Amino acid sequence: MARRSSERPTTRRAPSAWPTTGLSYGGDYNPEQWAPEVWREDVRLMREAGVNIVTLGVFSWGLLEPRQGEYDWGWFDEVIGLLHDSGIAIDLATPTAAPPSWLLHEHPEILPVDADGVREQPGGRLGWCASSPVFREHALRITTALAERYGDHPAVRLWHVSNELGGGNARCYCEVTAARFREWLRAEYGTVEAVNAAWGTAFWGHTFTDLDHIEPPRREQHKVNPGLFLDFERFSSDELLGHYLAEAAVLRAHSEAPVTTNFMVGSGRHVVDYSDWARHVDVVANDHYTIVNDPVREQDLAFAADRMRGLTADRTPWLLMEHSTGAPSWQQRNRAKAPGEILRNALAHVARGSDGAMFFQWRASTAGAEQFHSAMLPHAGTESRVWREIVQLGDALRRLRGVAGSPVEPAKVALLVDEESAWALQQGLKPHRALRYTRETRLWHRVFWQRQVLVDVLPVDADLDGYDLVVLPTLFVVSDAQAARIEAFVRDGGTALVTYLSGVVDGTGRVRGGGYPGAFRDLLGITTEEFRPLQEGETVRLSDGGEVTDWTEDTNLHGAEAVVAYADGNSAGRAAVARHAVGEGAAWYVAAQLPLGSAERIADRLIDELGLPRAVEASSGIEAVRRRTPDGDVLFLVNHSDADETVAVSGQSLLDDASFDGKAVVPAGGVVVLREGAAE
Amino acid sequence: MARRSSERPTTRRAPSAWPTTGLSYGGDYNPEQWAPEVWREDVRLMREAGVNIVTLGVFSWGLLEPRQGEYDWGWFDEVIGLLHDSGIAIDLATPTAAPPSWLLHEHPEILPVDADGVREQPGGRLGWCASSPVFREHALRITTALAERYGDHPAVRLWHVSNELGGGNARCYCEVTAARFREWLRAEYGTVEAVNAAWGTAFWGHTFTDLDHIEPPRREQHKVNPGLFLDFERFSSDELLGHYLAEAAVLRAHSEAPVTTNFMVGSGRHVVDYSDWARHVDVVANDHYTIVNDPVREQDLAFAADRMRGLTADRTPWLLMEHSTGAPSWQQRNRAKAPGEILRNALAHVARGSDGAMFFQWRASTAGAEQFHSAMLPHAGTESRVWREIVQLGDALRRLRGVAGSPVEPAKVALLVDEESAWALQQGLKPHRALRYTRETRLWHRVFWQRQVLVDVLPVDADLDGYDLVVLPTLFVVSDAQAARIEAFVRDGGTALVTYLSGVVDGTGRVRGGGYPGAFRDLLGITTEEFRPLQEGETVRLSDGGEVTDWTEDTNLHGAEAVVAYADGNSAGRAAVARHAVGEGAAWYVAAQLPLGSAERIADRLIDELGLPRAVEASSGIEAVRRRTPDGDVLFLVNHSDADETVAVSGQSLLDDASFDGKAVVPAGGVVVLREGAAE
Amino acid sequence: MARRSSERPTTRRAPSAWPTTGLSYGGDYNPEQWAPEVWREDVRLMREAGVNIVTLGVFSWGLLEPRQGEYDWGWFDEVIGLLHDSGIAIDLATPTAAPPSWLLHEHPEILPVDADGVREQPGGRLGWCASSPVFREHALRITTALAERYGDHPAVRLWHVSNELGGGNARCYCEVTAARFREWLRAEYGTVEAVNAAWGTAFWGHTFTDLDHIEPPRREQHKVNPGLFLDFERFSSDELLGHYLAEAAVLRAHSEAPVTTNFMVGSGRHVVDYSDWARHVDVVANDHYTIVNDPVREQDLAFAADRMRGLTADRTPWLLMEHSTGAPSWQQRNRAKAPGEILRNALAHVARGSDGAMFFQWRASTAGAEQFHSAMLPHAGTESRVWREIVQLGDALRRLRGVAGSPVEPAKVALLVDEESAWALQQGLKPHRALRYTRETRLWHRVFWQRQVLVDVLPVDADLDGYDLVVLPTLFVVSDAQAARIEAFVRDGGTALVTYLSGVVDGTGRVRGGGYPGAFRDLLGITTEEFRPLQEGETVRLSDGGEVTDWTEDTNLHGAEAVVAYADGNSAGRAAVARHAVGEGAAWYVAAQLPLGSAERIADRLIDELGLPRAVEASSGIEAVRRRTPDGDVLFLVNHSDADETVAVSGQSLLDDASFDGKAVVPAGGVVVLREGAAE
Repeated sequence: MARRSSERPTTRRAPSAWPTTGLSYGGDYNPEQWAPEVWREDVRLMREAGVNIVTLGVFSWGLLEPRQGEYDWGWFDEVIGLLHDSGIAIDLATPTAAPPSWLLHEHPEILPVDADGVREQPGGRLGWCASSPVFREHALRITTALAERYGDHPAVRLWHVSNELGGGNARCYCEVTAARFREWLRAEYGTVEAVNAAWGTAFWGHTFTDLDHIEPPRREQHKVNPGLFLDFERFSSDELLGHYLAEAAVLRAHSEAPVTTNFMVGSGRHVVDYSDWARHVDVVANDHYTIVNDPVREQDLAFAADRMRGLTADRTPWLLMEHSTGAPSWQQRNRAKAPGEILRNALAHVARGSDGAMFFQWRASTAGAEQFHSAMLPHAGTESRVWREIVQLGDALRRLRGVAGSPVEPAKVALLVDEESAWALQQGLKPHRALRYTRETRLWHRVFWQRQVLVDVLPVDADLDGYDLVVLPTLFVVSDAQAARIEAFVRDGGTALVTYLSGVVDGTGRVRGGGYPGAFRDLLGITTEEFRPLQEGETVRLSDGGEVTDWTEDTNLHGAEAVVAYADGNSAGRAAVARHAVGEGAAWYVAAQLPLGSAERIADRLIDELGLPRAVEASSGIEAVRRRTPDGDVLFLVNHSDADETVAVSGQSLLDDASFDGKAVVPAGGVVVLREGAAE
Repeated sequence: MARRSSERPTTRRAPSAWPTTGLSYGGDYNPEQWAPEVWREDVRLMREAGVNIVTLGVFSWGLLEPRQGEYDWGWFDEVIGLLHDSGIAIDLATPTAAPPSWLLHEHPEILPVDADGVREQPGGRLGWCASSPVFREHALRITTALAERYGDHPAVRLWHVSNELGGGNARCYCEVTAARFREWLRAEYGTVEAVNAAWGTAFWGHTFTDLDHIEPPRREQHKVNPGLFLDFERFSSDELLGHYLAEAAVLRAHSEAPVTTNFMVGSGRHVVDYSDWARHVDVVANDHYTIVNDPVREQDLAFAADRMRGLTADRTPWLLMEHSTGAPSWQQRNRAKAPGEILRNALAHVARGSDGAMFFQWRASTAGAEQFHSAMLPHAGTESRVWREIVQLGDALRRLRGVAGSPVEPAKVALLVDEESAWALQQGLKPHRALRYTRETRLWHRVFWQRQVLVDVLPVDADLDGYDLVVLPTLFVVSDAQAARIEAFVRDGGTALVTYLSGVVDGTGRVRGGGYPGAFRDLLGITTEEFRPLQEGETVRLSDGGEVTDWTEDTNLHGAEAVVAYADGNSAGRAAVARHAVGEGAAWYVAAQLPLGSAERIADRLIDELGLPRAVEASSGIEAVRRRTPDGDVLFLVNHSDADETVAVSGQSLLDDASFDGKAVVPAGGVVVLREGAAE
Repeated sequence: MARRSSERPTTRRAPSAWPTTGLSYGGDYNPEQWAPEVWREDVRLMREAGVNIVTLGVFSWGLLEPRQGEYDWGWFDEVIGLLHDSGIAIDLATPTAAPPSWLLHEHPEILPVDADGVREQPGGRLGWCASSPVFREHALRITTALAERYGDHPAVRLWHVSNELGGGNARCYCEVTAARFREWLRAEYGTVEAVNAAWGTAFWGHTFTDLDHIEPPRREQHKVNPGLFLDFERFSSDELLGHYLAEAAVLRAHSEAPVTTNFMVGSGRHVVDYSDWARHVDVVANDHYTIVNDPVREQDLAFAADRMRGLTADRTPWLLMEHSTGAPSWQQRNRAKAPGEILRNALAHVARGSDGAMFFQWRASTAGAEQFHSAMLPHAGTESRVWREIVQLGDALRRLRGVAGSPVEPAKVALLVDEESAWALQQGLKPHRALRYTRETRLWHRVFWQRQVLVDVLPVDADLDGYDLVVLPTLFVVSDAQAARIEAFVRDGGTALVTYLSGVVDGTGRVRGGGYPGAFRDLLGITTEEFRPLQEGETVRLSDGGEVTDWTEDTNLHGAEAVVAYADGNSAGRAAVARHAVGEGAAWYVAAQLPLGSAERIADRLIDELGLPRAVEASSGIEAVRRRTPDGDVLFLVNHSDADETVAVSGQSLLDDASFDGKAVVPAGGVVVLREGAAE
């Protein structure tokens, strides 16, 4: 029941070739904003900056098809010709993120309906319900027309299905969607009795006598049945994926170029189940924007990049489709980047496996909702720091072209992330409603990131062969099969670190009886008889000196040994962190929301005991990752601190002519990339 | 006009017998969540814990009547038989809190409509409009069927009408409700001219020329006419009460067992007028949940219990129908209880007149919205502190069976609470919108609770004979008759303590002219010419050293003497607290939101001057109450502090074999219950 | 395109006479709340207080026309007669702010619809859509009837169209409004292509192929196209103005008395474009309420008054139509006024050009939504500080009657405010969404107010002749023509002070390319290549010792010289404040959100360099303004501080018999008004 969609067939095709020679560099190009004479200046400046690819057509539907079935290709042909003539590859977008005004005017039933039953209005993006057959028909018509016209154009090197699918239309509660949801339930469960059993509808008297009585979880969001909630999230992800697949099928029928769509993996909410979606894109691509008031936003970037790598087949390169040259405009106080931050951010992505660095967008808009979003070519024009750094970045990427296609050094640590756990934990009546799933995933990634230990961020179902340590941060929803895989990994000599609220519910959202953390109780040799969430401002001391906030548990040891204990409060004396020797390996349980220092002590011990490899040994401000090229290892060193740092390495700088004989100074805020070996 | 509903006939019946022999112990039992083999284990464990009653059927409608008019009694018969065979009494609920899915699917017009005109959706509880004739018909059909089948079943010892009526459907703004509201107005006022006069509709030009033009106060909540608002609140309470009475009439026609419904008196908003409702239940019953981040939540518990006692006829026992063994799940950070807190909480209710202690719910759910709500049998099972404390509590209640049926020692202090004042004060354009009615009622209860002085919390219309002191905290809405009763009480030798914003408006919500506190001006010998609300963070010093926040007044003495004066600010030199000798008694006015210390000084003086009895003399951490049994007084001592406390008492412990000769040590966090007398 | 409405013809008529002899004193009078015997007491007390005018009829529609087309004039005739007999002038309101209940019942389509598509409900004020032809018909019928009956009544000295137009119905999103908006666009732009070009709809693919596809900016408020947003704001202002003009035309056809409507210029949002509206009222009138928790609320009062004066033709007197004697009731904690504050507030308005001081309302309501709003005659009656101060104020205004009709001393500083900039800055995806337009306008007014330098607050299109300094605080939206006027002003010897985010977008909301502050780049001799908004709590030091919050910029000098530089942060070393000598004058640019101290240093330098006149030289707690009467200058000195202040002046006190020979002591919290000259 409620199978993970990852158990369904994949449609991923290995791309025959990467869209560009060397690393990809460019951004979204929306030429319809400008007069044709500007297009010519654009292409000239793209060449000056070293741009070799742009994403075209994202918002062009209304101009390509100004009236239903009538197409105006002329201007688009001209732009494509200009780019092609300049040797700039095209990542051609189906324009379905931006339905034309005439379509929304004639078919307002396309617009999504929110949980209160209010229909969205035109004026944003992605103003369509993924279940709408009317929208699907129109979307596939323009997709077909586009594919027919440009499917074998030599400049079209990649297809970009729509744009940030789910960004605005992730959930719809209209009647069409409701009917589709019931179809989905029928396919998943077969009978209404099976749904009742899975969701435990008997409580609050919600037993359904007919599948057709089931409605999406409208309005009563806080109080909705957890099984219904979780299945509606799954359905909604599937429904958007269905749209992607329908467009992709059209493209694949007309073109050999690989097909992708840009994910939105960052600090925001988990809109769809990317662990599943990744199995259907030929190139894994992401849009990543740092949250400007996040004090460790570089680590959020690294986390997202490590997750992208984890979503690829066999850790092959992926593509950073969008990031920003400076301030976004959708945040509250849109911070500009500091000098040097553009290079640091872009190369951190490349270090972690992106074969390129692309931006939203090429030229800053003067009109429209995003008129204040930064761009490669800012409002101030070429007489600007941003432009100079964009030219510098283009040069750096050209110098680094040798890493294209190369894998990142294999990681020994895997960290499992799970959209379903995120959805379930942050919804409804929970022990602690203010907990954020990403707080815990970020914490455990951070302690390794600060120690230059590479972590692969993986889907829950990923193959764990070759890893020494697997970290499961609050893996709330877990099936028996998944729990068994973790147990086998440990028995075979691996180490698992499981944190609080993991294993609590099964795949239908039901609590596993007999004490927490249900599915992992035996593996961990510990049970929790009661959760003890802390109030705002309340803290509990630990035996290691740390202070816990937000979350503690009343644990009982059944074979595990306490590593850290609670030193005061109602759980005093009980284990806050415990280790259980199992088979050839060991399983750790963290029963508290640890402060950074306590997590760091655990990371140090694990690095030591398991011999986890550090890329270099440096202070926590140094980010260090290796890519393995046929010509040897290329080491990326990014200095996030305010002080120059000396790192013990030897080799040849790839960004300039320097060579390093045993040590390299990475300037404050700077980046060093070197091909390792004896200094030349 | 707009009579208080308390002026209407009561339907209360004195119950012929209490549902259980001795104190009632048990909880909500929702067996439809579990397989029949679990039922057998449940009954076995209930006996182990000493459970003698459960509430059954709250969520069973959809399973008892899976299709309209078709009933499935078999499984329910089996559960009832199992309980009866084990000697466990049944508090049988009409299942109308949980309308079946088929009913909501076929009759969505049953669902309430909010003030914005949006209809609620299925998926919660109480998803019905109390004015819906369609729902009423279906609800009475299942109620009749249930009453016919089990009306004379010997296990059925109490009827539980629906569940927490108003929790989710307290207000509805649909057209059916609007029409019923107009009928209610017609019955209350007779003519549209009378409504216009009562509400003062001439202001803002709202004069109605036809009663049919009147609508519920939708959307314009902040700005609505206070009279319309207040009458809609009264109507809504009456409408829900009407539903209760309709179900109760069916039950009473088929069964001799007493009828109740579970109130929700705690820290939340005042949903309905329980002062009125209490006159229609055969047993007063309450659901009380502490607010986990309330630092004096034990006093909130005591307040609710004192109010329940105040709602009974002649201070007879009432029943704690629900409380929790640990964390709720509907709060933000659902704190677990500390060791010993279960016993402290349960016995504090018993001490204050509850002849039992019941919980939501028996066995923790694994599914459904409340899957993380604590229960008597937690997810962890019997190997848990909670279960051990539940067994311990069962034992304690068995030992205390002798107090069943006995009254609590008569109180000399009455504190008047009033839903109408709460509604009116917290709505609309008020001098200070952030004031909370419960802040002031809690404060004045607290100062006596901390001094072991028992307070009866009474409806405004209650008989005041026998009390020495009556406290009126912000009794905003008051009729002439009520004010006259208070004045007579004082003239006859009583003392009244009236706090700010009392007496300001009459029963139609109109300000009484001539200076505040209108209705009590003469009694108090003081007038307030202007309110001086304080800004956030602003304080005013008092002559007693205290610091006032939120509320001050420009008072003028007319016969009263200042007890405490303002020491700075714009009201400096004026009286903040004043006392007026009247007839044989005295009337105090508190013109400020006093800090705890200032209120304590007043309480100390009143205890001293009036000789108010303290149950024991102990520190503020000791809660002490006596029940008067035929075999002598039983004293409950609850220690809420972190240190052992010695109390001067003699007698025989009822919870163990200890005896006390002149003093008893109440352990930190512990409870001592003794039958007073010479130590044996 | 999208012409400023100020380019359209004005309908302002110079009033033949001021409504009262001497200064106007009174308030809103809503007699329908009271019995006729109260009317007689009212008139008696009005005379006692010196009231010479009241605003009558604001909420009387339902009582004057209880059924459509049937009028009941009797009671109104009686009230008017009573007032007239007592020599009290009438400001007669059309009662259209309060549509009768029967009208809303019969025509609910009149009620406005919000951006979510939900129709407002009866029960507030101004419950009508300004585009509704149905409402317009009814409103003009009652207006005509009123004008016909009282148009030449000798007591009717002023017409008061409706009440606070836009307060509650400023924006409507119904279908009738949408159709009117499309008509407005057609009139402004002619073609859909012109709209597309102006708004830059190509971005996000919003190109319209038909004007009829355009909808108001519903729901997607944050993300709406800036051009669409701005034009909908303009349209909404025009639509309400259209209603005013329709009523005004009826009144002018029947009466010689001047016509006004009460503006709402204060700290709230900019509801309509008063710069335009002012051109259509015969007397400029304002309702001003201080925000009780604003620590410099007296300066907000002065700002509003200076703006009113700036909206008059040639700085002629205007009228303070409403303010309060104490606590409002629509704020959170409605602070009462301090003793003396009534006089200080009222005379500060008079000092700044108001020929009167009126209040909402005469007698405090006992019922209705505003039952706790303060009034001239409070709930406490005449035995109250408020009443005594009201009588005192009446006496003061009578003594000051000589200033009636006189101009305020001409200001040398103009400060330009612009509703369009306020709308545009505070909407949508902006570099910093938490910036508030009024923060910056208030700052630059404040530094001069504290130095007794008079500032005229003017519309952007105002004539700048005679000013030495013009201040443009964040003038975000600016046309080429407006920018050229500022440049000409400077070249001719004026000084302009332009602050951050000025000149950034043109009149269609499009960013001006080439670097900020676009329109003023050349004038200022500076460009900003990148904005650097600061995060909450983040500060940047300045070379003058100040600390900037919220806003910094990366500036580059092109002819200007740095006055203040950034001392740390990413912009360190760049100019935060710069001065550019241009022609005969100078242009200053402030590229940061300056702290008060830094702005004060600039003000001091400008006062010094430009010789800006101070009314007196006193500490910052003294507010000082002169009015120029035929009998000499009258100087108003208001002491906002807690200490007596001595000011070097000579002359004769107008409030009492004092005379000043070289110095006057203004008591703490007191007011001195003197006719200047040698002491008598």
